[in-house]
Amino acid sequence: MENSKIKAFIPLLYLVWSDDLLTKYEFDTLKGFINSLNLISSEEKQYILSKVDISNPPSRNELAQWKLDVENSIKDKSSIKSIFDIAIALSGKDLDISSLESDFAKLENDLGVLGEELIQNFKTKSNSLTATTKTTDNFDIQKLTAILDGEQASIIKKVKEVISRPEFAYETSTDILVYRQKVYDWCKILAEENLGNMAYPKQYGGGENIADYFAVMETLSYHDLSLVIKFGVQFGLWGMSVQSLGTEKHYAKYLKDIGSLKIPGCFAMTETHHGSNVKGLETTATYSHNDKTFIIHTPHKKAQKEYIGNAAVHGQMATVFAKLIIDDHDYGVNAFVVPLRDTNGNTFNGITIGDCGHKMGLNGVDNGTIIFDNVVIPKENMLDRFASVNDKGEFESPIPSDNRRFFTMLGTLVGGRIGIPRSALSAAKSGLTIAIRYSDERRQFGPEGGSEVPILNYRMHQRRLLPHLAKTYAVHFGLQYLTSRFLKKTESEMQEIEALAAGMKSYSTWSTRDILQECREACGGKGYLSENRIDALKNDTEIYTTFEGDNTVLMQLVAKNRLSEFRKSFGEMGSLGMINYVFENARTAISEKNPIATRRTDEEHLLDSQFHLQAFQHREKTILASAANRIKKLIDSGLEAYDAFNVVQHQMIDVAQAYLERVVLEQFQVGISKVEDVKTKEILVKLNQLFALSQIEKNKAWYLEDSYMDAVKTKAIRKMVNQLCWDIRPDAVSLVNAFDIPESCLAAPIAFY
Amino acid sequence: MENSKIKAFIPLLYLVWSDDLLTKYEFDTLKGFINSLNLISSEEKQYILSKVDISNPPSRNELAQWKLDVENSIKDKSSIKSIFDIAIALSGKDLDISSLESDFAKLENDLGVLGEELIQNFKTKSNSLTATTKTTDNFDIQKLTAILDGEQASIIKKVKEVISRPEFAYETSTDILVYRQKVYDWCKILAEENLGNMAYPKQYGGGENIADYFAVMETLSYHDLSLVIKFGVQFGLWGMSVQSLGTEKHYAKYLKDIGSLKIPGCFAMTETHHGSNVKGLETTATYSHNDKTFIIHTPHKKAQKEYIGNAAVHGQMATVFAKLIIDDHDYGVNAFVVPLRDTNGNTFNGITIGDCGHKMGLNGVDNGTIIFDNVVIPKENMLDRFASVNDKGEFESPIPSDNRRFFTMLGTLVGGRIGIPRSALSAAKSGLTIAIRYSDERRQFGPEGGSEVPILNYRMHQRRLLPHLAKTYAVHFGLQYLTSRFLKKTESEMQEIEALAAGMKSYSTWSTRDILQECREACGGKGYLSENRIDALKNDTEIYTTFEGDNTVLMQLVAKNRLSEFRKSFGEMGSLGMINYVFENARTAISEKNPIATRRTDEEHLLDSQFHLQAFQHREKTILASAANRIKKLIDSGLEAYDAFNVVQHQMIDVAQAYLERVVLEQFQVGISKVEDVKTKEILVKLNQLFALSQIEKNKAWYLEDSYMDAVKTKAIRKMVNQLCWDIRPDAVSLVNAFDIPESCLAAPIAFY
Repeated sequence: MENSKIKAFIPLLYLVWSDDLLTKYEFDTLKGFINSLNLISSEEKQYILSKVDISNPPSRNELAQWKLDVENSIKDKSSIKSIFDIAIALSGKDLDISSLESDFAKLENDLGVLGEELIQNFKTKSNSLTATTKTTDNFDIQKLTAILDGEQASIIKKVKEVISRPEFAYETSTDILVYRQKVYDWCKILAEENLGNMAYPKQYGGGENIADYFAVMETLSYHDLSLVIKFGVQFGLWGMSVQSLGTEKHYAKYLKDIGSLKIPGCFAMTETHHGSNVKGLETTATYSHNDKTFIIHTPHKKAQKEYIGNAAVHGQMATVFAKLIIDDHDYGVNAFVVPLRDTNGNTFNGITIGDCGHKMGLNGVDNGTIIFDNVVIPKENMLDRFASVNDKGEFESPIPSDNRRFFTMLGTLVGGRIGIPRSALSAAKSGLTIAIRYSDERRQFGPEGGSEVPILNYRMHQRRLLPHLAKTYAVHFGLQYLTSRFLKKTESEMQEIEALAAGMKSYSTWSTRDILQECREACGGKGYLSENRIDALKNDTEIYTTFEGDNTVLMQLVAKNRLSEFRKSFGEMGSLGMINYVFENARTAISEKNPIATRRTDEEHLLDSQFHLQAFQHREKTILASAANRIKKLIDSGLEAYDAFNVVQHQMIDVAQAYLERVVLEQFQVGISKVEDVKTKEILVKLNQLFALSQIEKNKAWYLEDSYMDAVKTKAIRKMVNQLCWDIRPDAVSLVNAFDIPESCLAAPIAFY
Repeated sequence: MENSKIKAFIPLLYLVWSDDLLTKYEFDTLKGFINSLNLISSEEKQYILSKVDISNPPSRNELAQWKLDVENSIKDKSSIKSIFDIAIALSGKDLDISSLESDFAKLENDLGVLGEELIQNFKTKSNSLTATTKTTDNFDIQKLTAILDGEQASIIKKVKEVISRPEFAYETSTDILVYRQKVYDWCKILAEENLGNMAYPKQYGGGENIADYFAVMETLSYHDLSLVIKFGVQFGLWGMSVQSLGTEKHYAKYLKDIGSLKIPGCFAMTETHHGSNVKGLETTATYSHNDKTFIIHTPHKKAQKEYIGNAAVHGQMATVFAKLIIDDHDYGVNAFVVPLRDTNGNTFNGITIGDCGHKMGLNGVDNGTIIFDNVVIPKENMLDRFASVNDKGEFESPIPSDNRRFFTMLGTLVGGRIGIPRSALSAAKSGLTIAIRYSDERRQFGPEGGSEVPILNYRMHQRRLLPHLAKTYAVHFGLQYLTSRFLKKTESEMQEIEALAAGMKSYSTWSTRDILQECREACGGKGYLSENRIDALKNDTEIYTTFEGDNTVLMQLVAKNRLSEFRKSFGEMGSLGMINYVFENARTAISEKNPIATRRTDEEHLLDSQFHLQAFQHREKTILASAANRIKKLIDSGLEAYDAFNVVQHQMIDVAQAYLERVVLEQFQVGISKVEDVKTKEILVKLNQLFALSQIEKNKAWYLEDSYMDAVKTKAIRKMVNQLCWDIRPDAVSLVNAFDIPESCLAAPIAFY
């Protein structure tokens, strides 16, 4: 039996037997629908019902024929929107089923299908927006690279040349002894190229160029990160500790050989029982009046030096931090140069070295433990820039407080908190380059009948990667700013810069952690294979959030610095300060928190960089004032200060976070303002908008709680973030290519799909 | 010169030279303050000023003496709150400096110090709240363990006994060949113990107990996760594919030998070019009429099978998914048993095996690639439960649609999406046990003069770990529910259960990812050492978010299922459905969204489980309706359905998330309602409150946007989360001990500090 009436039901018949897995219940619904129709004869009804008998399915061929019929009937007809429309088209002009329209509509509802969605299944080849968006060239990549590299372009170029050489091919052995040796050999090559001593005085063979030294660290970080850390331990921690804490005699004796890697060394601060709280170190350096020596000693097993890079295998000397004891008096933590091994690698008497063994990452670095059993060193081995023992065996220092002296010493080592976040940023750039290039090529799913679509065309995939890309650009400018502040630092700025460095270290390393996690998942199974390097990038940088200061602890420090600056800013301005602050906030409230501003959702406003900066600043100030207020209240209510600070720890993280986000946004904006090339500026402005709005979106609960924004605005921001991702997508590949990472360093096969 | 007047200034003198690192600017402030005083003579002034000369610091001993003076003067005097109070105490009764009080207060401000905070520096030994909180025994751990284990207690006990044997000592070699062999040997022991065939029919030597099989997977996951995955590939994927997709002849031929590990095998579905979109697999199985065989063939390199567990070394056979071709007709993807190697491990002709090489984790599993070059297999090797080729060479199937048939086949394999999230949960439990036990012992910092404090006493540290602990308990009950739904499933529930499994797989594996990340960071450097096992836990489970279905893709599926259920629920109720829904939501709006409820912040309300569930349900329903609405609007506005779904992908994740959160909360509550022991119930109720409120806090932007809560309420919730963390902290160690993970499996030295 075949007639045009029955044809009208073909879409329904196809529907129940096709992919959408209708249940028995829905079969019954459909049967009820057919039975209820008056338009068709009882015979026709029986025929149609026989085709929806769950125990007697149609043949595969019959189903295929139905599909073909439907496809032919709707071909090129964009007006077809529902099952009913198909039914009309199939039944032809000789049957008027228009009276059934509402029945069909109800049926669509009852079956829980959306007619228009269903129709996609019948359309061949689709030119959907999703399918057609693709990578384009909208700006000059090299111009952007030049902006990123800035004044360090030539040293960056040199480092890239070195690490692209064949001898820098990655080590793939899982034997950590082999890997450690390879990393050591690489370090020697870098030393020969005069890259290690870049920051040391010219007098001792160095380059006397700290800016270049940081650029070296950053660029090396496109290569193996064990290399970067081993390099940083030798030339940064070990060498710079001598340079910062020692005096002329130490420079003359050690710096040249450290710079050439003739003396591999360690920075022995952390102990098993004291990591974050280094003030509590327990290793002792006891002065012996008789022979004018120090006796370095580990009082108990948990006071051993731990995680010390270069210790397990290669280190011959170490800067050891120990409490100086003279005549049973404790003079606080000071630094001493202690020999560990002879040039043949044999440890000296009294030195016991342990191996930290296999780690989550950085297995090319030989981290170890060191125990000192009454090791005697000559008096001149004390690094005596900030404290010394005179000929009479008396302690001397221009800084009377032991703690203050120690923190001053630590302050001179703040460079590590610039090198690490810059290294982390490079790792994020590598991860994003791999993931974005792969996502631009990898295809999966697609419109029915069309070909598969690059996964970067999916909104969710854009959401996963592109805000991170924007943030990476933002952090780049933030770290450039931190570096230049550090290079031009004056005494009175030191506290602020130390806090900024501590904060940016946390901000950048946490950012890298999140980015690489997303990159791994975005690359699916391919992201799990070691050959694609996200493994190494992720596991090597995992410890970045812990070493050079645990991020959570650092963020508390940053917040405390902000609180103290906040209190001072009142002080400096006299009691007018507080009034000004309150007034200023009130002004904000009037101009920015009026109903029009809090509900404004027009594109011009949402994309306005002034709006972004004001929103970040408002958040920073308000959170800070609120935390200060809360602490005061808690203490006033009788809580001990120590407990009060514990209660607000969670809020303190927000204080630091809001401060850092403002700095990063501001510096990204400052950076962009200097760009002259129109096209480059255009894309950076878009990235900046995406960065700003995705941060506001992340913090939107706060903005709503504060009434700075209304729900209508935060919802509009979410949509705008989606839109910006979509708009930036065609430029995404160019934007990662602008990082200009050497292909041999990138190495991941999926980045060259 | 020493008199009581000058003594009044000692706290100031100590302040400028002590730890707080005042800058030159602040020295000047202090000098100005001293100069402005009329109470002291010019000579005294000069003397004091000489002590704040930045170029002429006091000696270390003088500083120490000042400190001692201050300490003695304030000893046991809790009334001392400011620098001025100290000054009074020091200057004694013979000098009236009370007129200076406001000057001192202003100075504190100008210097940006908080007097009370400063005074902590002088107090010896503090009994602060932070220092004194500690682990206590508030409930019977074994009773809680019994609740968690439930009816599977005996099989769990058996598995723990097996994996605690000496031969299950962890493999520490970094040589993946050694590791793979060890994992294989472990699997053989488990097979001998009849743990592998637990789910197979008794007829073929199995235990016919699927509930126990899942418990085995979960308990094994306290041990090496490569073992779990290798075990799952062999007995779950390979064995269950034969059982679910094959028929009696296949059971008889293979099941016993699979269960005993006599035939190691693979599950060869994923191809390089088709992972998530398995419908698009390109491997072909072409029927040859002449000799009644299939020819299995890989048409091009990117159609090779990839990531196949057991393939690189041990697999002798594989269930291969391939498009069935008969007479040039494509009959969709079907499954075939294909021999790969002989019993000596030599691959058969036409089979080319590649090795996926080193991976981020799971290196004990031999993942490989397989290329088939016209490999001929007999007709009976087709797993023919859902489709077959008859004697005439014709295709036969009770399911006419190729896609529907394929998805039906996949549906039978849903068990994997129960085993994996349960395995992930165990890994989270291990990580939390290690991190929480360590944090209870590890001490760092402390009140001035007091001893150092366990880091778990810090609010921030509690915040990092305890909401995760609560979530882990919640997910435990959620997965118990999923399992029991699966075990009692009926045909009509299958779609819902498949969606629930897909969702819970994503929810649990993402949760584990976040938990292990936090555990790693919370353990600092120790968390980075492989010996403490967070390395392995984290890297092994990293791929859990990708395999058995990419989480992001699965969440889209879950959301689509919810949308379709949503549409149907209208249908089933007729047009009344929509009215009911709107009415119900309006009722919510009236009862829950009235100003009293949205602003209610009393403890009773915030801790009320009814409030929690209503808030979760409201969110679930509203997000779902809003997404449905948005899609409809987008399509009505002319967007193709495919594009419309792309636009809302980000929102779809929320749809799925809100649904899963509600299920998990609800099941946690149901689970608790069955607990009889009062103490056990008490602690579980607290955990449930913490889980509920920390999820609401995470989603608070949504609740604010929806006006379901007012800012005053979301702020109160934040505080309540902090408070619950503090309240649960003394029970935290007992709560992880209740997971009852064998100590030999835990293994991490820091867990036994």
